Amino acid sequence: MAVAGLDAGVVMQNADLYYFTGTLQSGLLYIPAAGEPVYLVRRDAARARRESCLSRIITFGSFRELSGILQDFGLPPGRRIGLELDVLPVALYRQLDAALGNPHIQDVSPLIRRTRAIKSAWELQQMRRAAIGLDEVWRLALHLACEGLTDLELAVALEGRARSLGHPGYARMRAFNGEVAMGMVLIGDNGAVPSFRNTPLGGVGLHPAIGFGPSGKPLTAGVPVTVDLIGYGAGYYADQTRTFALGHLDKKLCRAYDAMCQIQALLVETARPGATWGCLYDECCRLATDLGYAEHFMGTVGNQVSFIGHGIGLEIDEYPFIARNMHDQRLEENMTFAFEPKAVFPGLGAVGIENTFVVTRDGLESLTLSDESLRIL
Amino acid sequence: MAVAGLDAGVVMQNADLYYFTGTLQSGLLYIPAAGEPVYLVRRDAARARRESCLSRIITFGSFRELSGILQDFGLPPGRRIGLELDVLPVALYRQLDAALGNPHIQDVSPLIRRTRAIKSAWELQQMRRAAIGLDEVWRLALHLACEGLTDLELAVALEGRARSLGHPGYARMRAFNGEVAMGMVLIGDNGAVPSFRNTPLGGVGLHPAIGFGPSGKPLTAGVPVTVDLIGYGAGYYADQTRTFALGHLDKKLCRAYDAMCQIQALLVETARPGATWGCLYDECCRLATDLGYAEHFMGTVGNQVSFIGHGIGLEIDEYPFIARNMHDQRLEENMTFAFEPKAVFPGLGAVGIENTFVVTRDGLESLTLSDESLRIL
Repeated sequence: MAVAGLDAGVVMQNADLYYFTGTLQSGLLYIPAAGEPVYLVRRDAARARRESCLSRIITFGSFRELSGILQDFGLPPGRRIGLELDVLPVALYRQLDAALGNPHIQDVSPLIRRTRAIKSAWELQQMRRAAIGLDEVWRLALHLACEGLTDLELAVALEGRARSLGHPGYARMRAFNGEVAMGMVLIGDNGAVPSFRNTPLGGVGLHPAIGFGPSGKPLTAGVPVTVDLIGYGAGYYADQTRTFALGHLDKKLCRAYDAMCQIQALLVETARPGATWGCLYDECCRLATDLGYAEHFMGTVGNQVSFIGHGIGLEIDEYPFIARNMHDQRLEENMTFAFEPKAVFPGLGAVGIENTFVVTRDGLESLTLSDESLRIL
Repeated sequence: MAVAGLDAGVVMQNADLYYFTGTLQSGLLYIPAAGEPVYLVRRDAARARRESCLSRIITFGSFRELSGILQDFGLPPGRRIGLELDVLPVALYRQLDAALGNPHIQDVSPLIRRTRAIKSAWELQQMRRAAIGLDEVWRLALHLACEGLTDLELAVALEGRARSLGHPGYARMRAFNGEVAMGMVLIGDNGAVPSFRNTPLGGVGLHPAIGFGPSGKPLTAGVPVTVDLIGYGAGYYADQTRTFALGHLDKKLCRAYDAMCQIQALLVETARPGATWGCLYDECCRLATDLGYAEHFMGTVGNQVSFIGHGIGLEIDEYPFIARNMHDQRLEENMTFAFEPKAVFPGLGAVGIENTFVVTRDGLESLTLSDESLRIL
């Protein structure tokens, strides 16, 4: 914050609050550029004191008390304050701005997101736990798969198992309008239907009000099934996609699956600390084009998303983005991201693979564990 | 909008977009005070045309194209524009503000929320469907309940049934930081643990990173169990809580349950079109106090929430709020809300009831169906 010229940062968003406090209460965390942070808690301060190792935790009722509380802690009113402008709603921002005495406000989210992008050993351990759960759930999918089983039935069974393992039933997403439950099972042509979500695969969903995910159709032989699920371990997520089919699968789709694996291999070969996010994206897209998948890669024509990988940790859309135009940002050691090369064929469906990687000094290590072959059952 | 002095409203939030378009795509809906709205769709315009009955649906890529597209439709640049300031993040708001030519901006959300609060016959039908699903799930809870079953196991079973009935696995919530999966099953003392969420009951959760909901503890005889679940039907939610215990339940908790039912009866007696939200709240709180529950009603002392009821429909926190200080807002016919008088006893747990009501000309009608007695199994 000192480098960014900020006197203090104010954190209000759930994932950020948990990251900096070790607990999740309603309220706000005031982090001065020098000195100890103050956690102002609406509910529940007693619980915050039990769960957090911060020493300055105080009950508060409304923004009106903010400046008085900060004064009590010997903190002068900050003149340059960082707020999470990518997530704070305008109405709340205005209240906070007034309570802080209308300081000069900057967006502190890029700074927070860069900090959060570098995972500690403990964080990586939670993501490994998430990956172990994912593998169990994927094995269950292979066990359950049979003709007549609907995508919804399969999803419900897999979600139930994940919930039993401690998954909260949803994943946190930072983007406005981001909606994500526990992942998606897409069968056959439903895998090629685009949706409002910023994901390569959408699905028609059960109703226009939701508009993505399972359609309720039964599994039949010869169609591709993608199982894209978000695993969970102590607040942290891991993301994995695998593809299977019953009986057989069109050669065209099998070749596309191999191509997606080749793209992943290129990534693993080239991603090192120092590589730019945008260059990795460009190189993978170039290979997709060279292999003949320009019109299928990461969505159908007109609906292609502009990323192949997304950072993951406490949220599923963290830094880094392996995405278009990200040439001024570089991979660093202990960054984690999901990489999901996928190919979409209108009327047929989608195939692809996704793993969650950690960047090590020597390159990528996959946290996700499941066998990567295209499974023909 | 004309009354509010607005030239146009711009809608971007998922639930609002679905409400006004009948589909859910990424993009924005421009609603002029006079003339037809224009739906600018990033993804997927073809799908928007299939699902929506709006005639002006057009593909767009970025905010830069906005003014050009509006001109093409003969719409002059609006000088007073309404945006959803309660949900739009600051960074997105600034981009939109610039794209609109920095007009005078007002918060259009109160207007949208008042419009959405009055349900059509079709909307009520979806909420009735949601309530039927809730009843099925509650019956399943009674069927499954036994000693040794954990809160998580029970929750997973109930959620699985709800998902099979078409529940998307999450509920939409408008409030910043709002997190809600499919509801909560709280057993014994866990029902008395407050959480960061703005709900009367919290629960300790499986980990501080989530911090609400089941704790993983097994069901034993003589403790109260609250089953608070959100049902779903075609985009719309209904909310219901029922309480049970195995074997027996402390007289103190039984009396408290009866008191919560009395508070519900008072509401049903007094809620009519024209009643103010705040007066209903005050009267119910007064009865809770008269009955001796001032320190237990809607949370433990220091953690009590300031509402008893919340509007529900496409989101679980719609208008009206049966809440403190809401004396300038009145109930209207066809408003729907969940009313949830609950009593919390530290160390023992919580009891309470919740139903989803529609306001009719003659008073309230409950959309939720389940038997309301405290079930001792």
